Amino acid sequence: MNKISIISIGNELLNGECTDTNRAWLGKELSCAGFCVVSGFTVSDEIDKISDAIEKAALDANVIIVTGGLGPTDDDLTRDAIANYLGVDLEYRSDLYAQIEDYFAKRRYKMIEKNKVQAYIPCAAEPLANPVGTAPGFVATKDNVLIAAMPGVPSEMKEMFTNKLLPILINRSRGDVFASKRVKCYGIGESNLNDKLGDLLRRGQNPLVNCTVNDSIITLHVIAHAENRKVAHKMVAKKIAEIEAIIGEFVFGFDDDTLVSVLARELAERGKTVTTAESCTGGLIAKMLTDVPGASEYFNCGFVTYSNNAKESLLGVDCGLISQKGAVSSEVAQAMATGALQKSDSDIAIAVTGIAGPTGGTAEKPVGLVYISVATKSKTIVKEFNFVHNRSTFRSRAALKALDMAKKVFSATV
Amino acid sequence: MNKISIISIGNELLNGECTDTNRAWLGKELSCAGFCVVSGFTVSDEIDKISDAIEKAALDANVIIVTGGLGPTDDDLTRDAIANYLGVDLEYRSDLYAQIEDYFAKRRYKMIEKNKVQAYIPCAAEPLANPVGTAPGFVATKDNVLIAAMPGVPSEMKEMFTNKLLPILINRSRGDVFASKRVKCYGIGESNLNDKLGDLLRRGQNPLVNCTVNDSIITLHVIAHAENRKVAHKMVAKKIAEIEAIIGEFVFGFDDDTLVSVLARELAERGKTVTTAESCTGGLIAKMLTDVPGASEYFNCGFVTYSNNAKESLLGVDCGLISQKGAVSSEVAQAMATGALQKSDSDIAIAVTGIAGPTGGTAEKPVGLVYISVATKSKTIVKEFNFVHNRSTFRSRAALKALDMAKKVFSATV
Repeated sequence: MNKISIISIGNELLNGECTDTNRAWLGKELSCAGFCVVSGFTVSDEIDKISDAIEKAALDANVIIVTGGLGPTDDDLTRDAIANYLGVDLEYRSDLYAQIEDYFAKRRYKMIEKNKVQAYIPCAAEPLANPVGTAPGFVATKDNVLIAAMPGVPSEMKEMFTNKLLPILINRSRGDVFASKRVKCYGIGESNLNDKLGDLLRRGQNPLVNCTVNDSIITLHVIAHAENRKVAHKMVAKKIAEIEAIIGEFVFGFDDDTLVSVLARELAERGKTVTTAESCTGGLIAKMLTDVPGASEYFNCGFVTYSNNAKESLLGVDCGLISQKGAVSSEVAQAMATGALQKSDSDIAIAVTGIAGPTGGTAEKPVGLVYISVATKSKTIVKEFNFVHNRSTFRSRAALKALDMAKKVFSATV
Repeated sequence: MNKISIISIGNELLNGECTDTNRAWLGKELSCAGFCVVSGFTVSDEIDKISDAIEKAALDANVIIVTGGLGPTDDDLTRDAIANYLGVDLEYRSDLYAQIEDYFAKRRYKMIEKNKVQAYIPCAAEPLANPVGTAPGFVATKDNVLIAAMPGVPSEMKEMFTNKLLPILINRSRGDVFASKRVKCYGIGESNLNDKLGDLLRRGQNPLVNCTVNDSIITLHVIAHAENRKVAHKMVAKKIAEIEAIIGEFVFGFDDDTLVSVLARELAERGKTVTTAESCTGGLIAKMLTDVPGASEYFNCGFVTYSNNAKESLLGVDCGLISQKGAVSSEVAQAMATGALQKSDSDIAIAVTGIAGPTGGTAEKPVGLVYISVATKSKTIVKEFNFVHNRSTFRSRAALKALDMAKKVFSATV
């Protein structure tokens, strides 16, 4: 079995200018793919410190993943440190140079001489292409230890890990293949889910069910090991059926599904459109709905009506209603939804009004109070919630709840 | 000078269930207090792994801070590992037991027998009280290396660090303190900046200038060491003046400033409002503008006009113009900006229209093409860009560029 050590390079990780989110992301991806992360190092931009960490990591890991230090500047020393460890020179690769040149050309930027250094990788290393940045990664092997270098920029690292490095790691783990699938749940808390699933979550089983929570979405990672892929897939499917029999009502999708992507798919399939009328979420729901490629199929327009004035002029909310009930009220939320439905000529409208804080709360209407309304041509619903979190978490929770409500209303609409 | 190593204990940090936010928090606090963090380790809940990390850390640090592994359960082994390292036994401390008992009594919880183990610390260690949890921390010294243990729960660790450990560290450090400040830049690439700053970025200088990049924002970290805080601050200020003399046009702020927070501050200070007319960014710019608390001071409303129809009906863009020039064109971007300005009665309008992809591009108008327009009552500007990235990065780059353009137009407007 592959034992993995992760080395994060960068002064900014030691002095706290940056939080090392790569470590947790990689840890989760590797664990869910059935690998074991045995150690982690955080190292400054100094060649001897990087070399030293690699030597230490190699003592109990047979895969070493290094992130960071592949940029074009003088403090980017990962290439050199790994070449040292391997006992080889750096080699200029004209194919990598062409990729970097191409990256700049496509963006109509002038390539700077400095970037040429990124076309050097250790002799005998295999490059890992970086389609979203200039720094290629690479993998090499010494004494049966595989060492991989990836950029520290999270978006570049994630792309490279998923599409290039992970397949290599899976190939390397022989005989015992595995299959995995993620079950995405919303609307249930972690302890409640734990209670309901009980024995299904017990450690040491095959298939194994791991549970992670991110921003109120619970992901169940179902991982099966077997002698071949077909058997492993069957084991996963059987376990998922058991899970759905218990908590099916909270399951909204699988693998990369999000609440938005599922709603988007349903809207597009039925040729329907959605609109948004956002106060406290300030455009976040529209942004999430248009994060999905092909959003123009189901999204024509959205309204960000932050002020009372905007609620009146853009959505036709009665100013008397606002002064009587308050902008954060069940009545105004409904009026926003029906107004947006009409003004946009969409099939379903999502409206949100609430108090994101940190200021603006009162005893009667505290920070965290939010009204969410969903309107279709035939009905309008509204619900009150209290999301007592910081501003950013409040907005994200309100947006997710609004999307979930829209999905449920839409699914129920024939 | 104190050289510090931070060891984070916990399987959950290796398998990615938790992001290690303690490391970055401690790194920043220690840096700001004038200490230098030289290395970091992430270790599983195994006694020999913890001992091993301590031995490694002691090779180049004279202060070792361990977080985590002080709980009451069987996998909490930090106490034992540090006692091993010190070559002493654990000692039962009735004063600590009384504190733990008191913690439970105050909360009217029954104290569990298991918690008694938390009243043991290595012989000759000094306890660090934990007023917000059950796990006391401790400090001890061996061979002139100070080793401190604190709980992994962030709220408990932060309290203990600030009020107990930091004063001990400051007492211990003589003479050499440091000051730091971050310079935030936008609109210049990393290699280009490197070329321009040249010698200023050379390693081994005092002040030292470190460079990090995140989502096209470059941060220059300027750190000076000196015999006292005042001198260190002066050195930082002088170095920043040198940096600004060279790349001042790209500097938009300092420390925690973002493009949005700077624009928001300027708008609020001058009592002006901004509106948005977004096609490809789909609400992202409105969301960013309202991420800032107090956004209602400068933001009334925004328009997400994804379809051609919405551009006409909500912003009054001429449908002939759209069919003649295309929705993604310099002319339509300008018409969106001037339309939004008028419809919202704001002082400045930001409009974006482009092709986010992955589909929808043509040879003439490829994916990545975007037009950004900024309008005030007295003038309208428009620029063309090519952001060849994935959908999400494209949108984020376009939003940042739009905010930067708005900031520049607004700053230039008397």
